[in-house]
Amino acid sequence: VVLVRTRNPLNIGTAARAMSNFGSLSLRLVNPYEASFREARSAVGASAMLKNAQEYANVADAVADCSLVVGTTAARDRQLQHPLKRLEQAAKEIHEQLVHGRVALLFGSEKTGLSNRDLSYCHFLLRIPTREDHGSMNLGQAVAVCLYELNRQGTGRVQPADVEPANSAVLNRITASLMEALRISGYFGAAEEPGKEEGIRRLVHRLNLSSEDATVWLGMLRQVLWKLRS
Amino acid sequence: VVLVRTRNPLNIGTAARAMSNFGSLSLRLVNPYEASFREARSAVGASAMLKNAQEYANVADAVADCSLVVGTTAARDRQLQHPLKRLEQAAKEIHEQLVHGRVALLFGSEKTGLSNRDLSYCHFLLRIPTREDHGSMNLGQAVAVCLYELNRQGTGRVQPADVEPANSAVLNRITASLMEALRISGYFGAAEEPGKEEGIRRLVHRLNLSSEDATVWLGMLRQVLWKLRS
Repeated sequence: VVLVRTRNPLNIGTAARAMSNFGSLSLRLVNPYEASFREARSAVGASAMLKNAQEYANVADAVADCSLVVGTTAARDRQLQHPLKRLEQAAKEIHEQLVHGRVALLFGSEKTGLSNRDLSYCHFLLRIPTREDHGSMNLGQAVAVCLYELNRQGTGRVQPADVEPANSAVLNRITASLMEALRISGYFGAAEEPGKEEGIRRLVHRLNLSSEDATVWLGMLRQVLWKLRS
Repeated sequence: VVLVRTRNPLNIGTAARAMSNFGSLSLRLVNPYEASFREARSAVGASAMLKNAQEYANVADAVADCSLVVGTTAARDRQLQHPLKRLEQAAKEIHEQLVHGRVALLFGSEKTGLSNRDLSYCHFLLRIPTREDHGSMNLGQAVAVCLYELNRQGTGRVQPADVEPANSAVLNRITASLMEALRISGYFGAAEEPGKEEGIRRLVHRLNLSSEDATVWLGMLRQVLWKLRS
């Protein structure tokens, strides 16, 4: 569970509590708003979880070792750039991926949710099916509902597939190399538009690269870069 | 949703928010600890739900018009006197009952949960499957998870059965009449043990009476009572 720019420490506490309720997972925090969050009294029975939470300066670092990154959103149609799945379906795919490696579940800040930049690190987005007129859930409750559904499906585990997917660190190195290659090549024109990097990162994530293939792609890109620079 | 003796108004607020997220239901409160709960800021987007919440002095009144009363518990083995069902199964039965009439979902206080007296009004108990070492959930999160599961199953509605079940008001009148009849009859001996009434009420609930049959039973009991008194 990755909480991004959470404002209210009570929500970090209840998120930790739900994590403890539904099984031991690892809690990661990207730029929490209040430094005092580790003392949140709402983490009843989950103070150890809160103490062991890891802090990161950005989403990229927080999800570097994950092979699937899923963003949560209350929106129905905001991001047409990402596949949007209902929790039940998303949980199924998360379970399939957990056979291979770590999965990051991202929750944005209470006010604004995940930014487009945050979302660009995601393979797909997840939505808890709520009422059309009032889709926005309390953060701690959203975490609890997601973990309940994951837990519910956990009993009937799926078959492992035979390919290991690329982790986020590799995908981000590919994105960075590709970006530089494109920049040097003049792909973006004179003035690079904002949001281009996010678009490229989504493009890379949609490839669903295997770990093996990703290494090959990165090698090819770096070779191209070396040539472009010289 | 019936919240019994809730201490923290923030939890009433997040419960209302989850209710609003998952569809419009009716919120009832039995003896909330703080009178100021209607101003709870945690009811983001659900202030109307909170304003319209009805207050009751006891569980009996709060569930009088309900034909199924379900208690929530974190315990695995505390109440052997009641059937204990996992949320998924409980939600299925709740949906079956919603075809006929109202269903009450009871949540106890944060510290102590539902009392044995509260539980005696329940047809069965529901448990969210959590980790053995840390079963106790935050109240607002427990409400959210229950309503999510009910909502999730809501798409595939079940067939209506052909009998209308008795509502709680009738079952409680039966219990009261039966108690008095037993008392007058000397059933409890010289000193009536505490908890007897709860035991009798559970007994009545386990009958799963239809509305029609309940009326007949009540008529019979009252006739017996009239005779006993005279």
